[in-house]
Amino acid sequence: MRGTGKADIFVMLAHPVGHAKSPGIFNEIFEQKGLDSLMVPLSCAPKDFNIFWAGLSAAENIRGVIVSVPFKAAVFEKCAGGHDRAVRVRSANSVRRNPDGSWYADNFDGVGFIDALKAGGHRIAGQKVLQVGAGGAGASLAYCLAEAGAARIRLSDVDGARAATLADLVSKTFPACEIDVGPADPAGADLVVNATPMGLKASDPLPLDVAGLTSDMTVVDIIMEPAETPLLREARRIGCSTQPGRPMMDYQVEAMAEFFDIERKDRSHG
Amino acid sequence: MRGTGKADIFVMLAHPVGHAKSPGIFNEIFEQKGLDSLMVPLSCAPKDFNIFWAGLSAAENIRGVIVSVPFKAAVFEKCAGGHDRAVRVRSANSVRRNPDGSWYADNFDGVGFIDALKAGGHRIAGQKVLQVGAGGAGASLAYCLAEAGAARIRLSDVDGARAATLADLVSKTFPACEIDVGPADPAGADLVVNATPMGLKASDPLPLDVAGLTSDMTVVDIIMEPAETPLLREARRIGCSTQPGRPMMDYQVEAMAEFFDIERKDRSHG
Repeated sequence: MRGTGKADIFVMLAHPVGHAKSPGIFNEIFEQKGLDSLMVPLSCAPKDFNIFWAGLSAAENIRGVIVSVPFKAAVFEKCAGGHDRAVRVRSANSVRRNPDGSWYADNFDGVGFIDALKAGGHRIAGQKVLQVGAGGAGASLAYCLAEAGAARIRLSDVDGARAATLADLVSKTFPACEIDVGPADPAGADLVVNATPMGLKASDPLPLDVAGLTSDMTVVDIIMEPAETPLLREARRIGCSTQPGRPMMDYQVEAMAEFFDIERKDRSHG
Repeated sequence: MRGTGKADIFVMLAHPVGHAKSPGIFNEIFEQKGLDSLMVPLSCAPKDFNIFWAGLSAAENIRGVIVSVPFKAAVFEKCAGGHDRAVRVRSANSVRRNPDGSWYADNFDGVGFIDALKAGGHRIAGQKVLQVGAGGAGASLAYCLAEAGAARIRLSDVDGARAATLADLVSKTFPACEIDVGPADPAGADLVVNATPMGLKASDPLPLDVAGLTSDMTVVDIIMEPAETPLLREARRIGCSTQPGRPMMDYQVEAMAEFFDIERKDRSHG
């Protein structure tokens, strides 16, 4: 039975939270493993975040929190420390308790992305990448692509200054990777990544100039719904190798389960 | 599936919360009804209650809270209003949202007790009652016994002033019921009620003088675990009619489910 008084409680925080996938995914995992744990979707107005977080932190039996838009930066600032992956982007997508009750931050956006790409049979080392979108998720992706050995990353964003700042930060950490800022034109790229929200709504414009796509390119979208975005549909039509957003989520879930030590709990509960 | 991003969230608050029964009971109800709802056991240190409650109130998708020891009075004070049953004892064991996001209090301790007694075939109207224990739960019980037509209630408590204050309050509300304060001696009573925590631990002394019990009396304990307290065992040995605490909980759960409008949600979700 999930959800007795002794249950370990995890929270999934977003605003809005209705469309979040991870609560359902984790509760299914808990059920399959026979764990007395709950992943609780919670939402608060962004203006109430400080009050909400103080209250959540006062709850003694909340062991961890998955964090999504628009709270990743705000939650990171509440943490006592974290993994490099979270610290370098100052953004938490998962936090767990330290022994003293304070919070430890991590960020699996990039980890899930890289793991999914590799599992899909796509090379990253030595590749030339066009990444469109240098926001929260984009920052995690760019660091992880550089870390995984991409030869070159071109960053493109409607906010040019944001792209330039990110390029600068990533190249300081991974100087072997050549990073610049440019237009959303795939010419010369091996790997084309959409890290913008363009494609969530049917009315969205395409995030990049698909006229530049050629069949030897791999096109990846981080959007999970629709499973095939207009960008991926165009890419498939052209003959590109494509990868949707869902595997990135699945590999993130795996990393989060390890981070939250769900397997260990499983064993200790017999 | 219980626990997607769209789930209705309810909280069961106590300190400690590990032994609370209602989270497991409600999650089983949600599962049986196929409802996407979670009852989340949460605990905070009493000193952190104000911070915790402010955070919980900021969570937009928490629809209701079941409240137990030691938070019933503190939660009542946070409410914008409530049912007479909660207001007269200044104690909430269930709260739900008003349309403006504030909290409405109710208290089903006495309701569950009376409903369980009636379902067990025990008369209350016209009966003479000895009630031992005039604390939080005891206050709810005394009001509800008087409301249900008990002819006389004798209140007994180690804290005599507490018993006297409660007797005074209840008789002002229900002047037809004769209420006084006296020793924990069943002589002359039809119905004998333990509303103290004595019996939770094996080492506890008996809450009342069992030498005074006779086989024509009904003895009721509000303690749920053990199912048969030493008091109930003695009473059974003497030949009294007995009633354990669990049915009181079951009837409370029914009243809470109605209060939280779980049936209506059931219908609206198809």
